[in-house]
Amino acid sequence: MDAELKALAREVNARLRELGLTLSTAESCTGGTVAAAVTSVPGSSAVFKGAVVAYSNDVKHAALGVPLEVIEKNGAVSSAVVEAMVTGARLLTGSDCAVATSGIAGPGGATAGKPVGTVWVAVDVCGSVSTHLLQLKDEGREINICTSAKKVLSLLLNRVNKVCIRQ
Amino acid sequence: MDAELKALAREVNARLRELGLTLSTAESCTGGTVAAAVTSVPGSSAVFKGAVVAYSNDVKHAALGVPLEVIEKNGAVSSAVVEAMVTGARLLTGSDCAVATSGIAGPGGATAGKPVGTVWVAVDVCGSVSTHLLQLKDEGREINICTSAKKVLSLLLNRVNKVCIRQ
Repeated sequence: MDAELKALAREVNARLRELGLTLSTAESCTGGTVAAAVTSVPGSSAVFKGAVVAYSNDVKHAALGVPLEVIEKNGAVSSAVVEAMVTGARLLTGSDCAVATSGIAGPGGATAGKPVGTVWVAVDVCGSVSTHLLQLKDEGREINICTSAKKVLSLLLNRVNKVCIRQ
Repeated sequence: MDAELKALAREVNARLRELGLTLSTAESCTGGTVAAAVTSVPGSSAVFKGAVVAYSNDVKHAALGVPLEVIEKNGAVSSAVVEAMVTGARLLTGSDCAVATSGIAGPGGATAGKPVGTVWVAVDVCGSVSTHLLQLKDEGREINICTSAKKVLSLLLNRVNKVCIRQ
């Protein structure tokens, strides 16, 4: 596993454990890479509740409760869809925090206005939800996925620090 | 990503696509590594429907419909639980095939009779379910997870070839 991703996963585990918070993920384009990174850390079962990899729209709907109208109206790669995914992940798993991803890892899947490397991320820290648009340089599917996963964990750490200091 | 895991993921994608079959995963100890491997292959969205990483027993129940009594009676690391997980994954995602894992990746979690490296795997190919007990040599959490994921994909390929030739 990428060394930087592993280090971030360790930091996420340590920080959430310190705060007594649990985590889940709802992943489309990252395909389980965020969950795999977080659970590669010994003792992660104290922090990690579970994940849904929602590749098809049917699974986004059936497992995470994303309304099909929201997908039809906004497209699967959108702020509205990752927001619904992240909320669905928290509801399904009962976790305190969650992250969601939907994007175009390539090489296929690009559309007008959404090139390969377009990734929407949502972060939910105890009900405080933020969405973030990544526009990554296309470095090939595997690197795009890994870079997305690293950005997700960094965003989670930032949000946890902001929300938990503010409270 | 481990080169052998990547090669197996490519083979699984190619074989399932050739047969027109779809796949989902229900992962406990592998933590999303099987899903991440399968979806690292370009074009995997034609084959892969989704995954549930069910780390907590609550998620095994809420997302995959594993009865809590089955977990209490048999323990989470058991043939009965992976069988219920694999069926749950197919039902949730509507996939033709599914794989499920529950085991002890270490370093913690070992119990009497279930040392680190004990992993139950279930494979469901179009309703034909088999369960398999792996007893891996403990080579550390990350290698244990990677080895488990490779065994899962090999078992899936074997079962697909057997079931699909037989039919």
